[in-house]
Amino acid sequence: MGNILKVSSKSNPNSVAGAIAGSIREQGTTEIQAVGAAALNQAIKAIAIARGYVAPSGVNLVFVPSFTDIVINNENRTAIKLEIGPRKTR
Amino acid sequence: MGNILKVSSKSNPNSVAGAIAGSIREQGTTEIQAVGAAALNQAIKAIAIARGYVAPSGVNLVFVPSFTDIVINNENRTAIKLEIGPRKTR
Repeated sequence: MGNILKVSSKSNPNSVAGAIAGSIREQGTTEIQAVGAAALNQAIKAIAIARGYVAPSGVNLVFVPSFTDIVINNENRTAIKLEIGPRKTR
Repeated sequence: MGNILKVSSKSNPNSVAGAIAGSIREQGTTEIQAVGAAALNQAIKAIAIARGYVAPSGVNLVFVPSFTDIVINNENRTAIKLEIGPRKTR
């Protein structure tokens, strides 16, 4: 498993897409964490863009969402975790 | 390809998850369309929940996001399309 990319509502989807593509090339998989609807929106856009970046190398990116509990400013929040990797298990 | 499930900001993630699980069981794949951050948020939650519904039958649900152009009230909008299916291509 690669780094965890934390995406916020202010993240640029193109920049995040570049980071996803880089992690996928180096490590095969990566993980995104997003808190809130606006952040999740940027994360999903980034994945849609990253699919185009890695498609020429024959990688068909898919992702798996799950819930995860995190602590922000001493408050419990539910974040969405998105695990990203190629479609076929290797 | 199964039906297209249109998810809005007011959709109940549990109900959408049930619809996803039903389509996956009957047709193997399904597709969600969401317009706007709040709708996408509900859609992703629904997929995370649906993973649990189909996991006992050995299905590991993944999904693929892409952009799609739709027309709402005569205006062009960009929606997010989420294709959902099992991890391994069959």
